[in-house]
Amino acid sequence: MAESDKREDWVAYRPDIKVLDCTVRDGGLINNHQFDDAFVKAVYDANVAAGIDYMEFGYKGAKEIYPPSKHGPWKHCDEETLRRIVGDNDTSLKIAVMADAERTNYKTDILPRSESVIDLVRVACYIHQIPLAIDMVKDAVDKGYEAMLQLMAVSTVQESDLDAALAIAAESDAGGVYIVDSFGSLYSEQIRALTKKYVSAMDGTGKEIGIHAHNNQQLAFANTIESIICGTSRVDATMAGIGRGAGNCPMELILGFLHNPKFHMRPILECTQEIFHPLSKTMDWGYSIPYAITGQLNQHPRTAIEARAGDAPDDYVAFYDLSVEEMS
Amino acid sequence: MAESDKREDWVAYRPDIKVLDCTVRDGGLINNHQFDDAFVKAVYDANVAAGIDYMEFGYKGAKEIYPPSKHGPWKHCDEETLRRIVGDNDTSLKIAVMADAERTNYKTDILPRSESVIDLVRVACYIHQIPLAIDMVKDAVDKGYEAMLQLMAVSTVQESDLDAALAIAAESDAGGVYIVDSFGSLYSEQIRALTKKYVSAMDGTGKEIGIHAHNNQQLAFANTIESIICGTSRVDATMAGIGRGAGNCPMELILGFLHNPKFHMRPILECTQEIFHPLSKTMDWGYSIPYAITGQLNQHPRTAIEARAGDAPDDYVAFYDLSVEEMS
Repeated sequence: MAESDKREDWVAYRPDIKVLDCTVRDGGLINNHQFDDAFVKAVYDANVAAGIDYMEFGYKGAKEIYPPSKHGPWKHCDEETLRRIVGDNDTSLKIAVMADAERTNYKTDILPRSESVIDLVRVACYIHQIPLAIDMVKDAVDKGYEAMLQLMAVSTVQESDLDAALAIAAESDAGGVYIVDSFGSLYSEQIRALTKKYVSAMDGTGKEIGIHAHNNQQLAFANTIESIICGTSRVDATMAGIGRGAGNCPMELILGFLHNPKFHMRPILECTQEIFHPLSKTMDWGYSIPYAITGQLNQHPRTAIEARAGDAPDDYVAFYDLSVEEMS
Repeated sequence: MAESDKREDWVAYRPDIKVLDCTVRDGGLINNHQFDDAFVKAVYDANVAAGIDYMEFGYKGAKEIYPPSKHGPWKHCDEETLRRIVGDNDTSLKIAVMADAERTNYKTDILPRSESVIDLVRVACYIHQIPLAIDMVKDAVDKGYEAMLQLMAVSTVQESDLDAALAIAAESDAGGVYIVDSFGSLYSEQIRALTKKYVSAMDGTGKEIGIHAHNNQQLAFANTIESIICGTSRVDATMAGIGRGAGNCPMELILGFLHNPKFHMRPILECTQEIFHPLSKTMDWGYSIPYAITGQLNQHPRTAIEARAGDAPDDYVAFYDLSVEEMS
């Protein structure tokens, strides 16, 4: 192809980049983790067929905080729940779960690795929970798991605090640290600065950098590839971009960009067409203007999610007026 | 705001950046330029209220190629058609039209500026039409207009040919040259390389660089801001991202990024809510997987547009199979 000449960076591929599908985990935030087994199995089968590296099924949420009578099975990811879908997971796809700081009984609910099909524990925390998160990471690694640290809402963290958190993470047992743009508020220049900061803080430790982007400003895919270019090697994506609010980086776009021959597009398209296109008629996710406004204001998308679920989901002007008002 | 510290590039604004709304021109490619006057007036009023710099109404298409019996009024932008909407345009908004090489009787259909409300003529061409386009630019400038050169489908142009075209453009009467990603196939690293090339080729001439991006891979906004960061000062956007196929850079996103105090978000949101949200129920534009596939393959979105208008708009797998097949 003639284009090859000017696309030398793009024509090659980086074998170190690993893709994690967080469809069921992040998508579960829309429906309180109530996906049925057939749905989760379809996503699992598609990921296996597509050669995706990891699939995240949900949370290890504490049952006294999230009673099973009120929350779906993917809020807890009990071992028997996971095995209903994956059996002994005799595939190349690794299984991931998320453990939220202060909302996980990690000492008891995360089993020794020898008793579990789980491969990776992703510990999610806010900046003030870093010490707890580091203990959760250590617990997971001691039990035999790979563990990653997800510092959420990084767009609201002071730079000096972030430096301190990264210094702690660099000394921790975590295999890597993720840049998490929870509010979908970061522009590419900020993603580049953050990625360079994370890369520099982990320099010499062998730890990887990851990116979890949201689509509030239609930048989830763009920010993911920017972060890759600056040195990130772990990326999150979802089928049809499903996820809370404006959703995540769409799987079909990131696979097209990576073009690692181990990945296969067709099973992703098949799953998107058969499962997610119909689902999008009854479940609201993806870009809309209220999410753009919360992203621009560096706010949690909570108010936009409420507006989208309310009587006037497309009253953008009222939402804008209220959002600007509430800043003051 | 605490965030200011780490956003110093983003907190300031660049007064040199001018925004052109091409809603009616690019959106007209969906409905054969059949928008009614009330629609066009609503877009015009919103642009005036929002402080947008330019509004492009349509083409100056030759009537023997595009007979008025078969094409809407915005395919020709006759002087009286424009004046039905803008009168003498006693506003700060400048009026633009597009003139396609080989499809415009530019010598006769573009009037002397003193007889027209038009301010800017954008000459669109493919690489083999550069000599003609340069003559069209000269004709417009001689008549008193500002003129810009739009070299379309740049993702299919050989780099050496592009260098030659830019050298000619640098010597021309054009006020500037646009990077036009007609197929929505370019990634941010390619946008950066192209912008630097265009900036370098125009160095010392006083000519501006512009960007016209498409959203086939959800990168229209991202690529627009990347190009800005690398030196572009003219950007195209549309209401609700309307435009052929996957559409363009959404106006609400670019205004949020630029935050030049002369721009106002509220009239844009009002127009989007009242006109474009209802319109999106009956007109198909915006991201969908067939556009991602043509973007990834660096192909014209024609086949994707046909698929979206056909019996199986969401048969992504069939479209993918056919697209890969037809490459060989």
